[in-house]
Amino acid sequence: MPDRTSLAIVLAAGEGTRMRSALPKVMHPVAGLPMIGHVLKTATGAGIDRFAVVVGNGAGAVRDFAAKAAPSAVLVEQVERLGTAHAVLAAREALEIAADDVLVLYGDTPLVTAETLARMRAELAKGASVVVLGFRPEVPTGYGRLIERDGQLIAIREEREASDDERAIGFCNAGLMGFRGETILALLDAVGNDNAKGEFYLTDAVEIANARGLGVVAIEADAAEVGGVNTRAELADVERIWQGRARQAALLAGVTMTAPETVFLAHDTKLSRDVVIEPNVFFGPGVTVDEGVVIHAYSHLTGAHLERGAEIGPFARLRPGAQLGPKSKVGNFVEVKNAEIGAGAKISHLTYIGDAKVGAEANVGAGTVTGNYDGYDKALTVIGEGAFIGSNSVLVAPVTIGDGGYVASGSVITEDVAPDALAIARGRQVEKPGWAARFRELKAKTKRVRV
Amino acid sequence: MPDRTSLAIVLAAGEGTRMRSALPKVMHPVAGLPMIGHVLKTATGAGIDRFAVVVGNGAGAVRDFAAKAAPSAVLVEQVERLGTAHAVLAAREALEIAADDVLVLYGDTPLVTAETLARMRAELAKGASVVVLGFRPEVPTGYGRLIERDGQLIAIREEREASDDERAIGFCNAGLMGFRGETILALLDAVGNDNAKGEFYLTDAVEIANARGLGVVAIEADAAEVGGVNTRAELADVERIWQGRARQAALLAGVTMTAPETVFLAHDTKLSRDVVIEPNVFFGPGVTVDEGVVIHAYSHLTGAHLERGAEIGPFARLRPGAQLGPKSKVGNFVEVKNAEIGAGAKISHLTYIGDAKVGAEANVGAGTVTGNYDGYDKALTVIGEGAFIGSNSVLVAPVTIGDGGYVASGSVITEDVAPDALAIARGRQVEKPGWAARFRELKAKTKRVRV
Amino acid sequence: MPDRTSLAIVLAAGEGTRMRSALPKVMHPVAGLPMIGHVLKTATGAGIDRFAVVVGNGAGAVRDFAAKAAPSAVLVEQVERLGTAHAVLAAREALEIAADDVLVLYGDTPLVTAETLARMRAELAKGASVVVLGFRPEVPTGYGRLIERDGQLIAIREEREASDDERAIGFCNAGLMGFRGETILALLDAVGNDNAKGEFYLTDAVEIANARGLGVVAIEADAAEVGGVNTRAELADVERIWQGRARQAALLAGVTMTAPETVFLAHDTKLSRDVVIEPNVFFGPGVTVDEGVVIHAYSHLTGAHLERGAEIGPFARLRPGAQLGPKSKVGNFVEVKNAEIGAGAKISHLTYIGDAKVGAEANVGAGTVTGNYDGYDKALTVIGEGAFIGSNSVLVAPVTIGDGGYVASGSVITEDVAPDALAIARGRQVEKPGWAARFRELKAKTKRVRV
Repeated sequence: MPDRTSLAIVLAAGEGTRMRSALPKVMHPVAGLPMIGHVLKTATGAGIDRFAVVVGNGAGAVRDFAAKAAPSAVLVEQVERLGTAHAVLAAREALEIAADDVLVLYGDTPLVTAETLARMRAELAKGASVVVLGFRPEVPTGYGRLIERDGQLIAIREEREASDDERAIGFCNAGLMGFRGETILALLDAVGNDNAKGEFYLTDAVEIANARGLGVVAIEADAAEVGGVNTRAELADVERIWQGRARQAALLAGVTMTAPETVFLAHDTKLSRDVVIEPNVFFGPGVTVDEGVVIHAYSHLTGAHLERGAEIGPFARLRPGAQLGPKSKVGNFVEVKNAEIGAGAKISHLTYIGDAKVGAEANVGAGTVTGNYDGYDKALTVIGEGAFIGSNSVLVAPVTIGDGGYVASGSVITEDVAPDALAIARGRQVEKPGWAARFRELKAKTKRVRV
Repeated sequence: MPDRTSLAIVLAAGEGTRMRSALPKVMHPVAGLPMIGHVLKTATGAGIDRFAVVVGNGAGAVRDFAAKAAPSAVLVEQVERLGTAHAVLAAREALEIAADDVLVLYGDTPLVTAETLARMRAELAKGASVVVLGFRPEVPTGYGRLIERDGQLIAIREEREASDDERAIGFCNAGLMGFRGETILALLDAVGNDNAKGEFYLTDAVEIANARGLGVVAIEADAAEVGGVNTRAELADVERIWQGRARQAALLAGVTMTAPETVFLAHDTKLSRDVVIEPNVFFGPGVTVDEGVVIHAYSHLTGAHLERGAEIGPFARLRPGAQLGPKSKVGNFVEVKNAEIGAGAKISHLTYIGDAKVGAEANVGAGTVTGNYDGYDKALTVIGEGAFIGSNSVLVAPVTIGDGGYVASGSVITEDVAPDALAIARGRQVEKPGWAARFRELKAKTKRVRV
Repeated sequence: MPDRTSLAIVLAAGEGTRMRSALPKVMHPVAGLPMIGHVLKTATGAGIDRFAVVVGNGAGAVRDFAAKAAPSAVLVEQVERLGTAHAVLAAREALEIAADDVLVLYGDTPLVTAETLARMRAELAKGASVVVLGFRPEVPTGYGRLIERDGQLIAIREEREASDDERAIGFCNAGLMGFRGETILALLDAVGNDNAKGEFYLTDAVEIANARGLGVVAIEADAAEVGGVNTRAELADVERIWQGRARQAALLAGVTMTAPETVFLAHDTKLSRDVVIEPNVFFGPGVTVDEGVVIHAYSHLTGAHLERGAEIGPFARLRPGAQLGPKSKVGNFVEVKNAEIGAGAKISHLTYIGDAKVGAEANVGAGTVTGNYDGYDKALTVIGEGAFIGSNSVLVAPVTIGDGGYVASGSVITEDVAPDALAIARGRQVEKPGWAARFRELKAKTKRVRV
């Protein structure tokens, strides 16, 4: 539908009291991205090009996020909370700029797919004035039923107003709706609040459209797509469904996961073919993994790029800016942050590499630390190609170890080391014969003191 | 029921041979607490104030545990194993001290809830002489069926003695029973052993009470509550159910868990609102977490207290006595034991802090170790407010780094450091030009030896 | 059946394009062993003593693996891919050497049990000429139906050729078949390719055998046994089923697992009674664990042997050749490789022990590293009985610390240390009063530079 313009109104003003959280509900993350971010991303993926986000009082975090995630979005505040139609009309200004389609989405319903939104848009393109997304829950009790006649949706009947026949209907209202841009305002302005709560309900637009002889259709989505989040238990359910989808897609694309249910992907994780992932690996946002990379168990990655054939873990921690060259190796209890690791370089054990460049084929010994921080500033460590860093050394940045340079174990390196040189900075070994025997005798005599 | 006294007889003498364990069955832990501890805790929560624990031969571990967990409990030994009624009568001495209610509980049935025990007690308070806990298993085969008539439980029929009509009953005996204190002894003394195994069955009390015209009722519990443990597979099932309950309660109370099924809580874990827990976090006993704390993946906590806004992990290990001040940070591959960490202090990487006080806003560099143990005694390390400890240092306790003090990287600190002073204890850097090139040439010529 | 000879033809030539992998399908591991390895191991367990493995073009990895796993196996290449009967006949040479039984197995169906294969063989021993393994899938659609009459399997009907009555049959073809050795060649040579794809189907042997008046029977296996792997999602399913079986067996044998579903066992893991395993433990191949060992959460073991009462983790990494003596302890963020750890020795924190012997009751301090590698060679470190290694030390191999020796914290030990002696190799502590205060003033004035 490249020739149709489309506006999404994203309702994000819900207070979310059942979340019991200081964080606005739609800002709770799924796969490392706030729920509303998923909605904006999916809508963009369905070809929607304009957004209005309706936020509640003082939802600064939502505003800030939306402004950044969808810079062209119109942010409007719903001052009073008078129902869904009222919420949509808070975006009247955006609605007055012509759009072919208008979709009403929910910031707390992040699993809806672009394909489903595209199907909604397709119904509008085919002539419907209103399209309602339906689903078939296992137990329909409590949901509004979709009453259809000859392909036309004639009403959304609330549970308490439904006849027995209507209650037997399993096809229910998911909440998401689409409207032809040219009729939405007229329909919503006709919605009244003559009901128990005195609220303006978006669903009333269905009967109004029917009364005006407009086409109204319902389309069906999988129940798993339309689950909204009201509690952290539901948030966890949504996360689980999201992860299940993402893992399945990765498996079918040629990623091996020994135990997919223990691998947590982020919304933007990129995994190539023949990547092998052992159990219990966590991906925060911003990770890209090239072909043939092996990620051992208990690894935690955020903002990292792993090139072809790199191998990490178990117990590896890659933080933002970690760039691992081809066939490089980051082993156990190793943290890498903002550092380029050259091809074939090895950092195998108990090491912290931060703000550094490690040359190809360099070998960084166990217990090495780049002293990148003096309490105020961060500085760079450069380890040359083929260099060898002895165990338990500290490289106090800024410092450069030349290509082929060698640092003796236990050294604290504060000056640059020339290529091919050995640097050594440690005390000389002294032995005190019999000292330990005397120490033990002494200790055996004195009362032990415990802290 | 504050005006009713209550005694629980906890049967804990089962041999548990199918556990294939040297540990007595009821001592196997669920959520970090022996099963029998759960039963004692739940009973206490249901207002029960006296306990008699019936243990088997030589079950020293059970005796020791019960004596500690319920100091007022009477511990009795069932010398011969002649059936459940016989086991209860082993506690005759306790039964002879008047109690309004007597509940018979099982040390290997740890999931029963206080609410269920309170319901049992309420039936006794309302006049029943015997109350039997029932449940509806998915498949009733093998369980004793509860035969009711007009609200009276008239018999518990064993599978093999049941008629076809009785076998069709889905309501089954869970084993737990309650008795009015004034009738229990008379009922149990009337139980005979004229049956295939020659044992005295507690369930016979139902028919005896009926014959005497006493009120007998059955109440229903959820099947998940009454699962007993006979194998380690069942123990794992019970753990899973316990964890599921505890996770759900935490979620609804406002704790975020990305993947609740990967978070393991202990029986006494306390989590506040807006605590965020990434996947794969393990809580041993004794952990308290204040509001807004973030616990990253792969963290392991026991006996620790985390104050508001603290952040730990991934890969953090907090051991007993770890007290993390507000907004303090314990990062990856860091272990903290018996140490107070001040507000805003940071211990970010590869560090061991044991037996220490770390001042507010102090920064402890990567690879730092508090040398708290000399092979005999443990001693204290004090790091002052705003102090900076360079990487790979050792602070040999007892030692104090004054407020604002600075320890150079790689130093071994054995003497106190004055406030605002720099301490440095390491070798000076020396360079041997070309050494590494010559070393490589030499190595290339010699045969490699592998261990 | 010790008196019957048996040959298994293992079909392993499938291209596995849906795996999207450079690795041949049957080489993808389950529980750390390539799928074809499971098939060979299971068949051996069922008493099968000869193997022919049919591989595809250029499947070097499969050939190499099979040659090693079953040295006596005949490896044959199926040059053209003309159906299952054609694949079996690729092993004609092996078939021409007389065997009582011939089983046709699949390299991508690794969950079939030895007991099932033994049941197939038993049918052949009882006189059947052909035995077909069947199963009852939840949804039979798509599978060939097994048409039986009076205990004789008369046909395997493909879905598209089945009548409505036949489609109602839930008993389906699992693919695995057995043949009497003396008739298999005659039967297979009679199979034609007069079908849509022009392929030679092994299943046609059923009708041919019937026409010849031979006995053909179907036996049933659990659906979980016969799942083949065509995608990585199916590979993960198979892994999950395998793990579920292995965990259940371990639990029933007396191993405690708090959360069995988070423990990953390898094909050859050996666990004794009263081993306790916390959540999230990963076993690579080659691990043996003796009675009473405790493995805390987040531990990763490969090729290690843990003796009675040893305790490791959380966050322990044991690599091949790690041998932990009785009651020894390997703590958090500790890696042990190719090292014997003596009884009661403790390596509690942040340590790398590689290529070493650690004496009984020795204590290795936090942050210790054995410097076993100089960039070229590996060498041995010996730590004597009762020795004490101070924190953040490096033991530069080859080096020996004598029994009862003591290494001061932060030392780099390059020379042997005599028994009972103290070795110290570090700088002396120097203090610069007020330096930190001046440093902070200076830093406060200068602009911060971030990398």
